[in-house]
Amino acid sequence: MLLRIDHVGVACVSLEPAIERYTSVFGLALVSRETNEEQGVREAMLATADGSSYVQLLEPLAPDTPVGKFLARRGEGMHHVGYAVADVMAALEAIGGRGVRLIDQRPRHGSMGASIAFLHPADLGGVLTELVQPHPREVHET
Amino acid sequence: MLLRIDHVGVACVSLEPAIERYTSVFGLALVSRETNEEQGVREAMLATADGSSYVQLLEPLAPDTPVGKFLARRGEGMHHVGYAVADVMAALEAIGGRGVRLIDQRPRHGSMGASIAFLHPADLGGVLTELVQPHPREVHET
Repeated sequence: MLLRIDHVGVACVSLEPAIERYTSVFGLALVSRETNEEQGVREAMLATADGSSYVQLLEPLAPDTPVGKFLARRGEGMHHVGYAVADVMAALEAIGGRGVRLIDQRPRHGSMGASIAFLHPADLGGVLTELVQPHPREVHET
Repeated sequence: MLLRIDHVGVACVSLEPAIERYTSVFGLALVSRETNEEQGVREAMLATADGSSYVQLLEPLAPDTPVGKFLARRGEGMHHVGYAVADVMAALEAIGGRGVRLIDQRPRHGSMGASIAFLHPADLGGVLTELVQPHPREVHET
């Protein structure tokens, strides 16, 4: 069901120095910047060399957003992991039937046109887990 | 330099229920179990469907190990992210020259015969970051 790790989401206080770090230290390519008002974040996607996985940098739009609260509680660092799936609706239905609580009952809009949904970390060993059905145009064959 | 996300390392109190969760909820395939005395962990590698990335579950061998201390401080959850590289020694030299402190000056033995090295999270926005040069026999072309 999980095709691959699509991205790791990294919470940061400020997006620009984090982008600078990942591009200059690791040579990752900045491929997208977006503001997602619904999720309360400014974000940047940086692609690894083979184009199959990303680092997603997340800066909160305000302290009372999920990422803002995460930063206040735990500081900067890994926030979630996202797995690519072929069909996020089908995956949600299957996983919900296996006793894992769904944060999103239905897919919503994610980065770069993806359909995404989050699963509850309390049922997954403390790991905030995202399902990502990439936008068809964003699928890179590797 | 970073080819793709190779794995996410997940700290757990007990390996068996964590393996059961990832195999039953997500259908991941258990591909390796190892005990790494040097790192103080029992671990399991579970492969995603396309075989290019893994969930690495980590159970500490004792409380006074790095993962044991992590669990005491933060509880279960994501511990680190590992990126595949073609040449871990060359990557370490390049990254060390860019002002990032190296936890490992030289590669050491990782999961499934890989050569690995960790970078210091304090220089990487709180993200404990691992470089992974997979064992040649473990590279799956996808």
